Amino acid sequence: MVEVLEQIEEEIHHVLCKVKAEDMERFAGELHHGKRIFVDGEGRSGFSAKGFTMRLMHLRYTVYFVGETITPAMEAGDVFIAVSGSGKSQNVVNDAEKAKQKGLRVLAVTRKPDSPLAKLADVILEIPGTVKGDAGEERKSIQLLSSLFDQSLHIVLDAVCLELSQRDHVANDQATATHW
Amino acid sequence: MVEVLEQIEEEIHHVLCKVKAEDMERFAGELHHGKRIFVDGEGRSGFSAKGFTMRLMHLRYTVYFVGETITPAMEAGDVFIAVSGSGKSQNVVNDAEKAKQKGLRVLAVTRKPDSPLAKLADVILEIPGTVKGDAGEERKSIQLLSSLFDQSLHIVLDAVCLELSQRDHVANDQATATHW
Amino acid sequence: MVEVLEQIEEEIHHVLCKVKAEDMERFAGELHHGKRIFVDGEGRSGFSAKGFTMRLMHLRYTVYFVGETITPAMEAGDVFIAVSGSGKSQNVVNDAEKAKQKGLRVLAVTRKPDSPLAKLADVILEIPGTVKGDAGEERKSIQLLSSLFDQSLHIVLDAVCLELSQRDHVANDQATATHW
Amino acid sequence: MVEVLEQIEEEIHHVLCKVKAEDMERFAGELHHGKRIFVDGEGRSGFSAKGFTMRLMHLRYTVYFVGETITPAMEAGDVFIAVSGSGKSQNVVNDAEKAKQKGLRVLAVTRKPDSPLAKLADVILEIPGTVKGDAGEERKSIQLLSSLFDQSLHIVLDAVCLELSQRDHVANDQATATHW
Repeated sequence: MVEVLEQIEEEIHHVLCKVKAEDMERFAGELHHGKRIFVDGEGRSGFSAKGFTMRLMHLRYTVYFVGETITPAMEAGDVFIAVSGSGKSQNVVNDAEKAKQKGLRVLAVTRKPDSPLAKLADVILEIPGTVKGDAGEERKSIQLLSSLFDQSLHIVLDAVCLELSQRDHVANDQATATHW
Repeated sequence: MVEVLEQIEEEIHHVLCKVKAEDMERFAGELHHGKRIFVDGEGRSGFSAKGFTMRLMHLRYTVYFVGETITPAMEAGDVFIAVSGSGKSQNVVNDAEKAKQKGLRVLAVTRKPDSPLAKLADVILEIPGTVKGDAGEERKSIQLLSSLFDQSLHIVLDAVCLELSQRDHVANDQATATHW
Repeated sequence: MVEVLEQIEEEIHHVLCKVKAEDMERFAGELHHGKRIFVDGEGRSGFSAKGFTMRLMHLRYTVYFVGETITPAMEAGDVFIAVSGSGKSQNVVNDAEKAKQKGLRVLAVTRKPDSPLAKLADVILEIPGTVKGDAGEERKSIQLLSSLFDQSLHIVLDAVCLELSQRDHVANDQATATHW
Repeated sequence: MVEVLEQIEEEIHHVLCKVKAEDMERFAGELHHGKRIFVDGEGRSGFSAKGFTMRLMHLRYTVYFVGETITPAMEAGDVFIAVSGSGKSQNVVNDAEKAKQKGLRVLAVTRKPDSPLAKLADVILEIPGTVKGDAGEERKSIQLLSSLFDQSLHIVLDAVCLELSQRDHVANDQATATHW
């Protein structure tokens, strides 16, 4: 195996080992077909958040990504998922506050359980991968910026989708039929 | 470790083991600061391609994502990177043909080395993860659609970035300084 | 009034004078709350198409923009709106063909009623503003590329929205309440 | 002419009459090929801002749209253009503040010269078209939300581009050659 791939795999393994089953369960437990789900994120972790949003659509959830063309007004009773490694992305935190004020459940996916984002969340899904800004002791990765967080995030959110598909009895064929 | 994470990790491991060092080297060898790089992709693998594009920008490459606001006309001598698991995404294949006609080098990142996309490429980076449309024997994943391809793609492209940063002597601090 | 604004206004006036009432009525007549509407477009006219899509959402239509995260598979009975000044934008034409094959109604908004896009459309909304590629006699604008088409398109699609809001009895307050 | 188009045209005319030549000149005067330009906006006026950004690219300016994949870090000496009808779009105002702190020139394009956005701007381009939230006396439009602002914005920014192309001696053919 290519050496750099091996190193990255090992780094991811160390992060995934620390993701808590109860975090994932509580997070998945908030997602239901009767709810409207808003997902928000920026930069590279935002792309993983978009991939998650797209998969939720394949699984026939009513889901929107903040900032896209057809995203409507949020309303009390909806669910807001905010993704930010640092938990400090200014616009994501603002949007989450707005969601909170409107009476949405706020779910934070973050590396930092004591961040501004995490503090206002009802549910936290912690992904302990090194993020941009981590330095010295905290930077436990040979990779750049938040790469390790982004990779771990991608896998954890895909795992959530897999569990949802099993819980909801949506087979691969059905999900494929919803694909553009 | 959460069982579903363990299963996904194992699936990814089996894919990464089959990625060829020479594919990665040849691919990275096409990317230089003097070149303009255009990246193209759709759907979930498109999001991984966008993450790759953003990281190349952090590493100070001149790079564009097809379909975004400031992407200019392609010209002979530029590099075109087309990402498509199936190698059949209609619009990506069209764009790659247009690139080919204009005299760009075409790099295909795909699961299918005999696909229409791969056939017109100068360089192929093969990522042998199950994609949407794979069925029966070919579907070597418990996951939905192309999830396994997308995850492997994410990691392989991040590995390319890591190698580029080492080759170009760009440290984490410098890349962070370019981050929005 | 600033002279350049006056000139642009006059150009737009000449285009709008030639837009046919029956084109607009037939176009609006295809849009109903029971239908799913897919909108497609590229470049600057694509931005006007996105503005139209957003407004349809405010008016509580079920509408998607092709290429965004939560756009699902098209199905027979849905409506496909393709915007292309030249009627030749490769990917828009491909998507429209795919829509046609799947049994959607195809509505073309274009400058060219004899273009590949217009030929496959069930309904054409012609907007006779100069587009990119028009030269000599055909280029009836001091403006760059397709600016005149884009401006006219913007106004015509907003006029359609205004008529829909009146037809459907959706007041400004209700539309505002749906705004993100 | 279709009646609704006539009404919209008249509304736009009343707005354009009030746009000040000196506002447009001062705004255009900030844009030079040696500068990096960042453009920011949300919703429908954001789409007009994207159209403007794309045209600046055609005119060979170094320009980025905030939130897109390859937008790098802002630096002192760059120019920040913030588009918001109300001058209160939370994330646009945040981004403009961040720009200000970093030492960029901030240009506000807005309906509200006394808004938070306008207050922090170095240059204001006022476009006095009715916006979302205007009610009673202030709502001088039969149209929905900020449609009138968006249309006027589109035309004013295109007029700026036309003037820049004349100032810089960029002909239509040259701009077309840069088009994707």
